[in-house]
Amino acid sequence: MRISIIGAGRVAFHLAQGLNGQHELVQIYSRSFAKAEQLASKFKAQAINAPELLHSEIDLLIIAVSDQSIRSVIEQVHAYLPDVLIVHTSGSTHLNVLQDVHPRSGVFYPLQTFSLERDIDWSNTPLFIEADNAEDQEKLHDLANSLSNRVYHYSSEQRLSLHLAAVFACNFSNYCYDMAKQIVDAEQVDFSLLYPLILETAHKATENDPRQMQTGPAMRGDQNILNMHQQMLANRQRADLQNVYQLLSQQILEHHQK
Amino acid sequence: MRISIIGAGRVAFHLAQGLNGQHELVQIYSRSFAKAEQLASKFKAQAINAPELLHSEIDLLIIAVSDQSIRSVIEQVHAYLPDVLIVHTSGSTHLNVLQDVHPRSGVFYPLQTFSLERDIDWSNTPLFIEADNAEDQEKLHDLANSLSNRVYHYSSEQRLSLHLAAVFACNFSNYCYDMAKQIVDAEQVDFSLLYPLILETAHKATENDPRQMQTGPAMRGDQNILNMHQQMLANRQRADLQNVYQLLSQQILEHHQK
Repeated sequence: MRISIIGAGRVAFHLAQGLNGQHELVQIYSRSFAKAEQLASKFKAQAINAPELLHSEIDLLIIAVSDQSIRSVIEQVHAYLPDVLIVHTSGSTHLNVLQDVHPRSGVFYPLQTFSLERDIDWSNTPLFIEADNAEDQEKLHDLANSLSNRVYHYSSEQRLSLHLAAVFACNFSNYCYDMAKQIVDAEQVDFSLLYPLILETAHKATENDPRQMQTGPAMRGDQNILNMHQQMLANRQRADLQNVYQLLSQQILEHHQK
Repeated sequence: MRISIIGAGRVAFHLAQGLNGQHELVQIYSRSFAKAEQLASKFKAQAINAPELLHSEIDLLIIAVSDQSIRSVIEQVHAYLPDVLIVHTSGSTHLNVLQDVHPRSGVFYPLQTFSLERDIDWSNTPLFIEADNAEDQEKLHDLANSLSNRVYHYSSEQRLSLHLAAVFACNFSNYCYDMAKQIVDAEQVDFSLLYPLILETAHKATENDPRQMQTGPAMRGDQNILNMHQQMLANRQRADLQNVYQLLSQQILEHHQK
């Protein structure tokens, strides 16, 4: 497929890297020409920074920009590519944000966390596709299959639920690691001591029901330790961590008494 | 070393399995004889269920019981083993809980999450030791070294900080997985779709500062998505998840605006 990408951030970069070779990357469009050029030069694509420069002779345009910019991007580009299949890559944006403006639209959502520092294992990354019509759905299916073994046809509602769950499983668990690091940093204790625990906890949750894997003072209903931990956080004047400790412990307690 | 263990739960089981072979397991003591017998029979040790049956001809007694029972256990056994080195295995119990009753005391704390279903990689498990005197400290150091390459001499205060951090990194991140599962379960979406994300998030946090790895709508300050997610949880009448979502998002927002 001949593919152009709008966006030059983490998702655009990893998608371009995954698609490159099997598909032809035609143009990379970013408001910042320097960013577009930086990405385009890696994949022998053309860098552009204005919608009127978009080639219409392509099979697919991928919008890989921040969620809040998707609506304005489709409004800018629709007139230049009225007949081209255009998809967004967002877990939390309904297909109709594109459909309202552009009939041939779809979704190509990779459920993964992207950083520029780390390579993505595309073959194991779940890809969720959705399209306005059956023909485009099939096109997206073939494209997704060229990247990953795990391709799913999901409605916008299902995808939005999955994305909400991902905020808990990924963003919030990462913030738990961050809070743990803040606690040990303050005592000059090395955060790397917690690595085996972090990895084991994650692996356990992917091999068993995490509810069954819950451990810790709240799970055991150990009020002495719960009080001691609250006191330790109070002594360090970390009301923020104390609030999190209190809320999550309370919920774990109630959840496991049911 | 000739070692006896009090307790027949997860920590006792994994410790016995780790120590067996290199050391002699003499007795397993549990209030429940059946549980003691179940564990002891695996390691050719004697099962007992009363403190007066403890052999005093041992090098070390390990108390591997719940945190809140440590004090009563040391009070029960001290008179029968007045000269034996006795350690507990708790991250959150000060050494003086033993010292107050029994002079030759110490701590042997493995920083790991134990389930009966999964084997422990002892060689990579950080072990934290502490003892009343230098000679016992050295004994515990040798014992720890026979299990793990990562042995640390930590004060009770440092160990308590580490354990508090572990509650955030392990217990709370597991509860985040649990909440994510509750969200997808309600929509008949398969939780296993989140496995790559969960594992990648954990691995990232062990290779980089988790603060730098934070992603998600709160990190980006994306108020539209934050409001939409709150609304989705409200529609499902999950005030518990909404409270967690609100608190953690608020803190991530503030933490990353600093």
